[in-house]
Amino acid sequence: MTSTKTPVSVIGLGRLGAALAEAFLANGHPTTVWNRSPGKTEDLAAKGATVAGSLTKAIEASPLVLTVLAHHGAVRELLDPVVGSLSGRTLLNISSSTPEDIRKLATWAQGHGADYLDGAVMAVPQAIGSADAQVLYSGSTAAFDSYGEQLGVLGAARYVGEDPGVAELYSYALLSAGYGTLFGFLHGTAMLDSAGVRPTEFLALAVPWLNGMVAFLSEIARETETGDYSTGESSLDINLFALENIVAASRTAGVDPAFHLPTVDAVRKRIAAGNGDESASSVFEVMRTRG
Amino acid sequence: MTSTKTPVSVIGLGRLGAALAEAFLANGHPTTVWNRSPGKTEDLAAKGATVAGSLTKAIEASPLVLTVLAHHGAVRELLDPVVGSLSGRTLLNISSSTPEDIRKLATWAQGHGADYLDGAVMAVPQAIGSADAQVLYSGSTAAFDSYGEQLGVLGAARYVGEDPGVAELYSYALLSAGYGTLFGFLHGTAMLDSAGVRPTEFLALAVPWLNGMVAFLSEIARETETGDYSTGESSLDINLFALENIVAASRTAGVDPAFHLPTVDAVRKRIAAGNGDESASSVFEVMRTRG
Ligand SMILES: NC(=O)c1ccc[n+]([C@@H]2O[C@H](COP(=O)([O-])OP(=O)(O)OC[C@H]3O[C@@H](n4cnc5c(N)ncnc54)[C@H](OP(=O)(O)O)[C@@H]3O)[C@@H](O)[C@H]2O)c1
Ligand SMILES: NC(=O)c1ccc[n+]([C@@H]2O[C@H](COP(=O)([O-])OP(=O)(O)OC[C@H]3O[C@@H](n4cnc5c(N)ncnc54)[C@H](OP(=O)(O)O)[C@@H]3O)[C@@H](O)[C@H]2O)c1
Repeated sequence: MTSTKTPVSVIGLGRLGAALAEAFLANGHPTTVWNRSPGKTEDLAAKGATVAGSLTKAIEASPLVLTVLAHHGAVRELLDPVVGSLSGRTLLNISSSTPEDIRKLATWAQGHGADYLDGAVMAVPQAIGSADAQVLYSGSTAAFDSYGEQLGVLGAARYVGEDPGVAELYSYALLSAGYGTLFGFLHGTAMLDSAGVRPTEFLALAVPWLNGMVAFLSEIARETETGDYSTGESSLDINLFALENIVAASRTAGVDPAFHLPTVDAVRKRIAAGNGDESASSVFEVMRTRG
Repeated sequence: MTSTKTPVSVIGLGRLGAALAEAFLANGHPTTVWNRSPGKTEDLAAKGATVAGSLTKAIEASPLVLTVLAHHGAVRELLDPVVGSLSGRTLLNISSSTPEDIRKLATWAQGHGADYLDGAVMAVPQAIGSADAQVLYSGSTAAFDSYGEQLGVLGAARYVGEDPGVAELYSYALLSAGYGTLFGFLHGTAMLDSAGVRPTEFLALAVPWLNGMVAFLSEIARETETGDYSTGESSLDINLFALENIVAASRTAGVDPAFHLPTVDAVRKRIAAGNGDESASSVFEVMRTRG
């Protein structure tokens, strides 16, 4: 049985790694830390962390070993020479990479006797330790279940599947939606800037409008899930007209319309295929089959 | 003084025009209607509308004349031969167009002695008459003030400026943010589809994530308004890394990365200009000066 006293090791003490180690320390976990270059362990040592004298010692100190490096390639590069010490332990990798690379890393770790869990942190380091920090996990169910308490220390933990790459895939899907919102908003801000409207004036209208849009996504999700695009409130034809007006209005406002051009293109493709009377969500069919 | 009995005329009885006329009728306004082609007045007549025998008669029936046509070009084309009858009345044009074209239409109407108000409806026809239907107005302040009661019948009325084109510009700015959210979500849905994750599963995580992003836009708006991009929680360099991972992960998932490519490009441009340590919102500076 795991207890709050389960030792953990954190390898890589950049902005995120340091925040994770601090959260473990704040919750009373014996925490061993290691970083490639010096100067990043002092603060944590003062808070009670054990500074490992070598990478192998850092790994051997705990059944749960976190890697929090710049990217997955660094994980493989760093651990390869000492991989024997991972056997029988759980490798919880937090370093970002593509789902494909994460799957390879998991296979490599499993091949050396380690249980593999992947963690995708959807939060800034400052939020770690609070319920606002959502962390998605995928890979070993056994590891997620055994270390539930430890993972809970870092933020709101959510297991999204056995495929080790799926937590990263989820994180990129969420970022995709988030960046769409952010840059769509910035584009609108730039359009209004041409008429002297201030960003915070736009914000006052944009927030309720976007809250409504987010609520409307349940309808969009239902349509894409069932493939029934007949029930939309506004057709692709109407949306194309609106998108073309955005592009034209951007150009006359001196704003680069680039952000919206791929969407115009995707909507046009779907209309050209004879689906102009379908809901906007049917562009999903264009997105998932191309590329 | 205006009263709830002020007569109104609605010219153009497509999906939106019919809904607007219905809302006026439901609120007891004497309502005169006209449509180019026949067959669209019967329902409204049954609800108490006066069907005008000619376009001139429709205009002369009311001090407030709404045009709800497919686009602004149709308004000019239709009203030009009878423009004398507009003198001394308020033309409230609801037909969509670019802000530039709307400004020309306003100048034309004012040149013929009419007061011009532009309305941008941010709602589907089904929502007209409820507080959910946001309608933005720009142009004549006097007209907006005089007809406040009538406008309130249609939905939540908001005056956004004297420049007649600014309501349309606002509407495209809002649509820009809305489409960014919608298509960013669809892109994420397509990515997860490659791993067998259902759209409604993604929705469950995407909704709280996007609600957080919408709340975060106040910070983004503040940064763009002050031009102080130094305080961001994550730098352009970090965001570029995430965006490049989205693109790479999309490609291996068989999803066309097109949606995110203009954003990658804009972020790279800003970094190349030496601003890699700034907040993501600084891409605003690239957007508003290009194109
Ligand atoms: N910061 C965030 O907001 C955030 C949020 C979610 C996810 N993430 C992800 O978490 C990971 C870490 O992010 P971070 O912000 O902590 O990055 P960071 O501050 O740049 O730290 C990078 C860490 O990786 C180490 N490292 C890099 N290459 C290495 C190698 N070849 N061998 C050994 N160590 C190596 C660095 O060691 P040195 O000190 O020796 O250079 C440092 O400890 C990234 O994958 C990032 O995408 C970050
Ligand atoms: N529907 C929405 O959800 C919505 C929301 C916000 C804004 N809008 C905007 O509101 C406007 C009307 O939209 P709608 O949905 O009502 O369109 P619609 O159903 O297609 O109706 C178009 C109307 O325009 C008339 N028309 C077109 N060209 C004309 C011409 N040259 N001369 C005279 N009449 C002409 C049509 O008359 P006929 O019947 O004779 O063809 C019809 O009454 C558009 O600018 C649209 O962008 C619509």
